[in-house]
Amino acid sequence: MIVSDSLNVNERGNLSISGADCVELAKEYGTPLYVMSENGIRRNMQSFKNSIDEYYSGNGLVLYASKTFSCKEIYRIAKSEGLGIDVVSGGELYTALSADFPSDRIYFHGNNKTEDEIKFAIKSDVASIIVDNFEELYRVNKIAEKFNKTVKIMFRIKPGIDAHTHEFIMTGQIDSKFGFALETSEAMSAVKETLNLKNVILDGVHCHIGSQIFDEEPFMAAADVMIKFIADIKKETGIEIKKLNLGGGFGIKYVEDDKAVPFQNYMKQVSKVVEDKCREYDVAMPFVLIEPGRSIVGSEGITLYTVGSVKEIKNIRKYVAIDGGMTDNPRYALYGAVYTALIANKANENADDVVTIAGRCCESGDLIQKDTKLQKAEEGDILAVLSTGAYNYSMASNYNRLPKPAVVMVDNGISRIIVKRETYEDLIKNDI
Amino acid sequence: MIVSDSLNVNERGNLSISGADCVELAKEYGTPLYVMSENGIRRNMQSFKNSIDEYYSGNGLVLYASKTFSCKEIYRIAKSEGLGIDVVSGGELYTALSADFPSDRIYFHGNNKTEDEIKFAIKSDVASIIVDNFEELYRVNKIAEKFNKTVKIMFRIKPGIDAHTHEFIMTGQIDSKFGFALETSEAMSAVKETLNLKNVILDGVHCHIGSQIFDEEPFMAAADVMIKFIADIKKETGIEIKKLNLGGGFGIKYVEDDKAVPFQNYMKQVSKVVEDKCREYDVAMPFVLIEPGRSIVGSEGITLYTVGSVKEIKNIRKYVAIDGGMTDNPRYALYGAVYTALIANKANENADDVVTIAGRCCESGDLIQKDTKLQKAEEGDILAVLSTGAYNYSMASNYNRLPKPAVVMVDNGISRIIVKRETYEDLIKNDI
Repeated sequence: MIVSDSLNVNERGNLSISGADCVELAKEYGTPLYVMSENGIRRNMQSFKNSIDEYYSGNGLVLYASKTFSCKEIYRIAKSEGLGIDVVSGGELYTALSADFPSDRIYFHGNNKTEDEIKFAIKSDVASIIVDNFEELYRVNKIAEKFNKTVKIMFRIKPGIDAHTHEFIMTGQIDSKFGFALETSEAMSAVKETLNLKNVILDGVHCHIGSQIFDEEPFMAAADVMIKFIADIKKETGIEIKKLNLGGGFGIKYVEDDKAVPFQNYMKQVSKVVEDKCREYDVAMPFVLIEPGRSIVGSEGITLYTVGSVKEIKNIRKYVAIDGGMTDNPRYALYGAVYTALIANKANENADDVVTIAGRCCESGDLIQKDTKLQKAEEGDILAVLSTGAYNYSMASNYNRLPKPAVVMVDNGISRIIVKRETYEDLIKNDI
Repeated sequence: MIVSDSLNVNERGNLSISGADCVELAKEYGTPLYVMSENGIRRNMQSFKNSIDEYYSGNGLVLYASKTFSCKEIYRIAKSEGLGIDVVSGGELYTALSADFPSDRIYFHGNNKTEDEIKFAIKSDVASIIVDNFEELYRVNKIAEKFNKTVKIMFRIKPGIDAHTHEFIMTGQIDSKFGFALETSEAMSAVKETLNLKNVILDGVHCHIGSQIFDEEPFMAAADVMIKFIADIKKETGIEIKKLNLGGGFGIKYVEDDKAVPFQNYMKQVSKVVEDKCREYDVAMPFVLIEPGRSIVGSEGITLYTVGSVKEIKNIRKYVAIDGGMTDNPRYALYGAVYTALIANKANENADDVVTIAGRCCESGDLIQKDTKLQKAEEGDILAVLSTGAYNYSMASNYNRLPKPAVVMVDNGISRIIVKRETYEDLIKNDI
């Protein structure tokens, strides 16, 4: 109903997620609290998976982009839905393997993997290492040689597509720390260099054009560019690229006005481009990978807080202070990100009070939302911030030595903890 | 020499901190690594302490502002230097008590303390709770009543002084989530309300006018306003305010151009205002508290990284990728903060290459500094970012499931770990 199909208002007038009453969840588990809908997450995973089956006449795999939300349980869910995953660090790989995620469905990303991480990835027999730069190419080859292995790699390519999103979350254009540039022929040089290296085998190419994109067009343009690149590679080197990874960046609703595209539309449009261009350039249909992350978990997570005080500064601003803030959700402080907030125990009331939601950190910039509409707040209310499933728990800090909140998963009205709340003891565990 | 007196270039041409070679530190402890100078931290603590003794004819206490860098060892150092501390959460209080910090020198801050935290603070007999708002005032009184105690409180006052710093780190003006406004008589109402409450005793008033301030003037103005307020309180209620807490916000050098004021100057100027105004308004000289945090640890910490790749995009930009980033230093992503960077193993070479220092997180905004001058970087170099002692470890996250770096303290060339590096096992410790 609100931002996500998993959210509703129940007969008590309280916000509910997948059938669980948010006020009850706050009471049972305490606040601040991350709550996620397992039903919604599985629905989104299936939606992406089905879109490949339905629209693409070749084969493909959906990779869940770990960086949006990584913990053992999300990998179990991704595994049971038949997805692969991408990881961007040894920590994410370690977490996935701890949850028995099959390594042959793990793709290892990152613009600057350490030697230890490359060793870890090779030892773990991940499906592919997505190589970002020349130093890394040689590093991977050298480590693979030591292990006496031939490692499958893909190259991260900057396709030169600019998806017009917020500067801080824009990638894909040439001025980026990520990948090899296509237009400067750097990418082709890297491809050719693999012919000189004995311990890597070029398995595919990857691109990622941005984040929170509400339009199929840039994805179609990227697919076009990448198929042409695959054709060029074949022509210039004879190498047949088997895998095309088109990245993620599919937009989700943070507020009702966000014009989110149904996920299947991306694959529908992109499949047609891939098929047409493969025919046009006379190359084999690649195995297609896509990497949704935010679009799987983002709208399926909410954060619950308790209101501590309401401070009205006449003719200026009304501050509603909550028991969390930039520690559990740094996206307003980082990007001025917009969110929908509502009072879970007054979800049926009119949201006609304009307030600024202030976090509890000792920092003026610690706000969750400035001048947003809310039901009339008072001390003790349970405030819900929606669409916090992605980049909230994963970006959480211990600033002000605040423990990270617990994460609760809801499945058809039944809730369970999937990440325990940090304790004070956890905070000092590494202090000497 | 560079930004802090603790930093130098040694006979090998390497950056050194308090006599320890940074290249050796990187080798011994690995990167990314936080390194701090104990000598420098103690020197700064002493400098603030001496400034009260030297310039203020009344009594006073320096409170180290924990939020800038909190761990057990920093509290031991503060204790041994005779400082008090301020804490802003149960987590900081817990850490300080774990290090046997005397609770009668702990001041508890925060704009939205939870009930559990207030209980914890009262049980621990902290020196004072700095009350931020009316709901909190009643909450403290109620909890104190339950414990059958009378609790010393101070009020956080917005003195209406605008210290002209970056909007995100500006406080003190009326449009702030912190404190009671003076000009709307909200602050006086709060003071009067304490007369109706049996379990709190008003011990002092507090203000904080901003961060990273390079000028004594706003501090002098704030002192003036606060003494006048103390006089008004006496006149209107008969209450004699004993403690005046003037907060922190003293600026430090991030780059050589920053015009940092010698710390003692603040107290020198402010003391004169306090003394003059006390005479003028006929009130007793208050016990003065100041809360330096960044100015104690900021310039005394550096972060060491290993360079993984150098990516030159012709006519556009050169990216130097390091093995840390916004996870260990989010201040560029948050505020566009400026930093001085240099290559520790080439500290004597000319810094005439213009580069962008890119973190390793899968996020375009993960930069440490854009277009900054650096010695010519190559794979394997040890890159040092200076003035990272404050708000770096304390704001660190596990985004991308990166473990937090270790913190090493250096004392006259001898190094020791004070916070252990997080392990992969630490990352999943709360995952079900």
